[in-house]
Amino acid sequence: MIDLQHSSEHADGVVDLLGLLSYATLSGFFRLSADAAVAASLPDKIALSEMAVAEYGHFRQLLGRLEQLNVDPDAAMRPFVPALDAFHARTRPADWLEGLVKAYVGDGISADFYRMIADLLDPRTQTLVNDVLADTGQADFVIVRVREAITENPSVAGRLALWARRLVGEALGQAQRVAAERESLARLLASGDPGQRGKIGRMFSRLTDANSGRMAALGLTSHRVPPADRP
Amino acid sequence: MIDLQHSSEHADGVVDLLGLLSYATLSGFFRLSADAAVAASLPDKIALSEMAVAEYGHFRQLLGRLEQLNVDPDAAMRPFVPALDAFHARTRPADWLEGLVKAYVGDGISADFYRMIADLLDPRTQTLVNDVLADTGQADFVIVRVREAITENPSVAGRLALWARRLVGEALGQAQRVAAERESLARLLASGDPGQRGKIGRMFSRLTDANSGRMAALGLTSHRVPPADRP
Repeated sequence: MIDLQHSSEHADGVVDLLGLLSYATLSGFFRLSADAAVAASLPDKIALSEMAVAEYGHFRQLLGRLEQLNVDPDAAMRPFVPALDAFHARTRPADWLEGLVKAYVGDGISADFYRMIADLLDPRTQTLVNDVLADTGQADFVIVRVREAITENPSVAGRLALWARRLVGEALGQAQRVAAERESLARLLASGDPGQRGKIGRMFSRLTDANSGRMAALGLTSHRVPPADRP
Repeated sequence: MIDLQHSSEHADGVVDLLGLLSYATLSGFFRLSADAAVAASLPDKIALSEMAVAEYGHFRQLLGRLEQLNVDPDAAMRPFVPALDAFHARTRPADWLEGLVKAYVGDGISADFYRMIADLLDPRTQTLVNDVLADTGQADFVIVRVREAITENPSVAGRLALWARRLVGEALGQAQRVAAERESLARLLASGDPGQRGKIGRMFSRLTDANSGRMAALGLTSHRVPPADRP
């Protein structure tokens, strides 16, 4: 009885993670192709389009797995549409640079979140998730472009640092919302931990810590937010 | 001497056609992915994204051929950016249905134009162009959705018929601009014809004729533009 319950909880968690990740990669495809459309040069348009198409390839892999599991992809994704759409609506980049930072910081923190869930699931799901979250080359492109922009005009660093912190706040807020609203995910994340909230809280601290490396890579850590920009 | 001149004219024509078609497919990818992002349902989002990614595959094939010919893709595409961007700026769909009609009618007439140029070139270029212009499944999707919309609300037919005619006018205008501005294309299109303008004129009549079939497929032919909608 306990085993059965555990395996059904596990299956719900797998479907939830795959559904969430499917809609996230589909949204990622839309965002990257929109960024590509407004990129200033043809080589940048092509570089971003390649990332968009790679992201769509990840979406297809996830869809294939949902179909193998006889799960309707539409039904699996739908619960996560509001949280992801809300994240994107609340974090519309004001320009090209903010778009790049969003692609790198937002995708990075989401990927960490998905990997933490996958770690609680079966090896096959873990492999698929790690595959799908494999770097599309986006990171290098963003780091080069953001560092170039800061060298050219050091004053953008403060604005971008503030923007990156806002993205992290919004991403954690939506991740918390998803974890709280989906019982199967909440149970999974808290599994084996009598003090459930403690475990979820620690997970979110780990997400924030992991983000520091990305901020440093962009050259945004040593830049304090200028007082005038503080809300 | 004549042969050499002919072959250099031919080579310029090939590069121009590949450059034009490359930027057209890249723009097509941007437009289709933007349409997918605003589609109302997840299945429609997926169907349009699949078409967008197929279009990007065509772009890659063209890019590969330009690289084989040792031509810088950026330089090959750049001359055609203004005309294609102008076409898209002048024909921004007001809603989802206008976007669908644009995808079908606009892409259809462009494909006819590209095929007519390819027919004047070598078999290898012809094969590539026909490959790249192969239907991505978009046509069936659009026909079904537009016919559904007309059945649901017959009054949209008049508006869409007017819109389709505007698209054809804008497409022919930009095609004429491209043919006139690029000497190598103009020479190619007029090749072997002492009355050059006559030949190009007949080509444009053929483009208009070929469009009637698409209008009929959408169920838009029998619908006269209502007097109130006339400009």
